[in-house]
Amino acid sequence: MSSIIVVGHKNPDNDAISAAVGYAYLKNELARRAGEEAVFEPVRLGPLPPETEWIMGERGIEQPRLIESVPEGAKVILVDHNEMLQSVDGLNTDDLVEVVDHHRLGGLTTAQPIRVNVKPVGSTAAIVAREFEIEGVELPESIAALLLGAMLTDTVIMKSPTTTDFDRDMIARTAKTLGVDPVEYGMDIFKCRSNPAELPIDKLVNADAKEFELKNGNKVYIGQFETVDLKAVLGREAEIREAIKALVAEKGYQFVLFFATDILAEGSQFICEGDTQFVSDVFGVNLNDGESAWMPGVLSRKKQVAAPILAA
Amino acid sequence: MSSIIVVGHKNPDNDAISAAVGYAYLKNELARRAGEEAVFEPVRLGPLPPETEWIMGERGIEQPRLIESVPEGAKVILVDHNEMLQSVDGLNTDDLVEVVDHHRLGGLTTAQPIRVNVKPVGSTAAIVAREFEIEGVELPESIAALLLGAMLTDTVIMKSPTTTDFDRDMIARTAKTLGVDPVEYGMDIFKCRSNPAELPIDKLVNADAKEFELKNGNKVYIGQFETVDLKAVLGREAEIREAIKALVAEKGYQFVLFFATDILAEGSQFICEGDTQFVSDVFGVNLNDGESAWMPGVLSRKKQVAAPILAA
Repeated sequence: MSSIIVVGHKNPDNDAISAAVGYAYLKNELARRAGEEAVFEPVRLGPLPPETEWIMGERGIEQPRLIESVPEGAKVILVDHNEMLQSVDGLNTDDLVEVVDHHRLGGLTTAQPIRVNVKPVGSTAAIVAREFEIEGVELPESIAALLLGAMLTDTVIMKSPTTTDFDRDMIARTAKTLGVDPVEYGMDIFKCRSNPAELPIDKLVNADAKEFELKNGNKVYIGQFETVDLKAVLGREAEIREAIKALVAEKGYQFVLFFATDILAEGSQFICEGDTQFVSDVFGVNLNDGESAWMPGVLSRKKQVAAPILAA
Repeated sequence: MSSIIVVGHKNPDNDAISAAVGYAYLKNELARRAGEEAVFEPVRLGPLPPETEWIMGERGIEQPRLIESVPEGAKVILVDHNEMLQSVDGLNTDDLVEVVDHHRLGGLTTAQPIRVNVKPVGSTAAIVAREFEIEGVELPESIAALLLGAMLTDTVIMKSPTTTDFDRDMIARTAKTLGVDPVEYGMDIFKCRSNPAELPIDKLVNADAKEFELKNGNKVYIGQFETVDLKAVLGREAEIREAIKALVAEKGYQFVLFFATDILAEGSQFICEGDTQFVSDVFGVNLNDGESAWMPGVLSRKKQVAAPILAA
C-alpha cells in the first residue's frame, strides 16, 4: 500500500504541525493493531514555528518532512483545515481519505464518502488527543507534550473566545498526564516565539496568515501575529504596511488584513491595505488612509475576524 | 433556548428517520447530563417507510413530526445527508449546528465552525449507535431496535458493498443487546415493506430517490427500490417509465434513473429516461430507446450508482 500523508494547512502554525504528527502516530498505532501496514506520514507545507521546533527538540520528536505538493500516488488526510485554498498543491479530492479540523466548512466536495471529524473547539490538537482516548491508544509523553503545546497556543492559553469546556477538559487531562501546570507551560511556549523586533518582515507578516474567498469570489489574506510584546510589532508598522501593500499588488487580493494580538492585554491592533473600506465597514472602525485600530477583546482570527468578514 | 431539530433527507428512508430519532434521544440525554434543557426534536420531511412504521409501532416509539421547512428560529442538525439539495427547505447554513452522515461531501459551506461527524460506513444509524458508546449513554431497547433496523436496511442485511467491519461490529453488538439474530431481524424488516405490485406508482418511483447535481451543473434524480419480489416491480415497467419521463419534463432533470434492487439475487435492474446515453456510457450498457439493463452485484446507490455518475 502506498503512503498516506497527514498534512496541515499552508503557513503552518503550531496546531497544524502538531496535529499532523499526533494524528499520524495514532493512525499508525491503529493500523498495527489491525495487523495492517503503518503507512501514515506527517508532512508540513512550510517552516516549523519556533515553538514547535522548541518542543520537538525538547522531546526528541522527528520533524515532519517538508513537501510542496502531494507526492505521486499518495492518499491524503487533512488536519487543521478543510479548504482547498489553504491546502497542499496538487490535491485531487479523489485522493482525500479523511479530514480532522476545527474550522468552518469551506465547500469541500468528494465523489466518495470520506471520514470527517470536525468539532467547533479551540484546537485540532484537542480533537486528536480525544481520538487517542476514544480508540484506547496510549498517548506517549512526547506526543502529549506536542499536542498540549498546540492546544495552548491555538487557544492563547485558554483566553481565546474559541476555548470551550472540551478544550479545558482536554488541556487539564493532558497536562495532568505530563505533570505540568498548563498556564506555566503555555507561557513558556509563547516566550520562546521569536522576538518581533528582529524577525524578517515577511516572517512577521506571514507567520500565521491564510487566504480566504469572499462571497463575491475575490480572495483576501488575513494574518495574525500573537505576541507578548505589542510595542515591538507596532514599531514596525511602516514596514508591515509596505509588505502587505506588495501582497495586494502581487496576488490581486481585495485586501490584506494584518493584526497583532497582545495576549496579555487581550486585544489586537488592525492594520489593513487594499480595500480598507470593506474591513472598516465590517468592524465599524476606520482603517483607511494608513489608520490602524485597537480592537479590545479580539483574540481569535477564526471567530472574531474571519467569520464576520466572510459573512459580510 | 429555542428548539434544535434533527432532520434526515427528503424522501426519507429508514436510516434517515431512525438516525434522527436516535440522535435526538442521545443529544437530549447529553443535555440533561450537563444540566441543560433537552431541546432536540427529531423531525421528518416525508412519510414513514413501512418498515420504520412497523418498528416504531412494535417498540412504542413516537413518530417524529412531519415538517416542510425549518420552523421559525430553530437550529438544525442534519443526519444521513449533507447536501443542501437533499435537505429541508428554508435551511440557512448559519442555523446549522451539526452534521452526522455517511455520504460523500456535497460542498457545504458555513461561516462558523460546526460539528461534523461523517464516516464512510454502511449507515448513519451505526454512527449514531457508536456515539452512544463513546459518550457512555445507555442505549434503550426501543432505540436499539430502531437503529439496528436501519443498519440492516441501509446495508441490505450486510450484503451491500458499503458494509464495513465497523458496520458488522455495530450490528453484532446491537443485536446482542436486543437478543436477536441480525439476519433474521433484517429479513423480517424487508418482508414488511409494501407489496410492489400494489404500491401507487409515485410511491414506488420516489420511495428512496434523491436529487444530485452533475459536474456540468445539471440536476439528475436517482431512485432505488429494494425488493424481494423483482418480478412484481418489472411487471410495472411501462408505468415506471411514464412516471420518470414526467419527472424529467416537469423538473428539467438531465435524466432520471430508477433501479430495482433484488436483495436475494444481489443485483439491480436499471430503467432510465431523459439523457439515457449519459447513463449508458457511465455503466457501459444500453439504456436507450426503452431498453433496461440487469446489473449483477449492484446493490448500493451511493457507492455503485451515484459515485460513478457524479465522477463522470
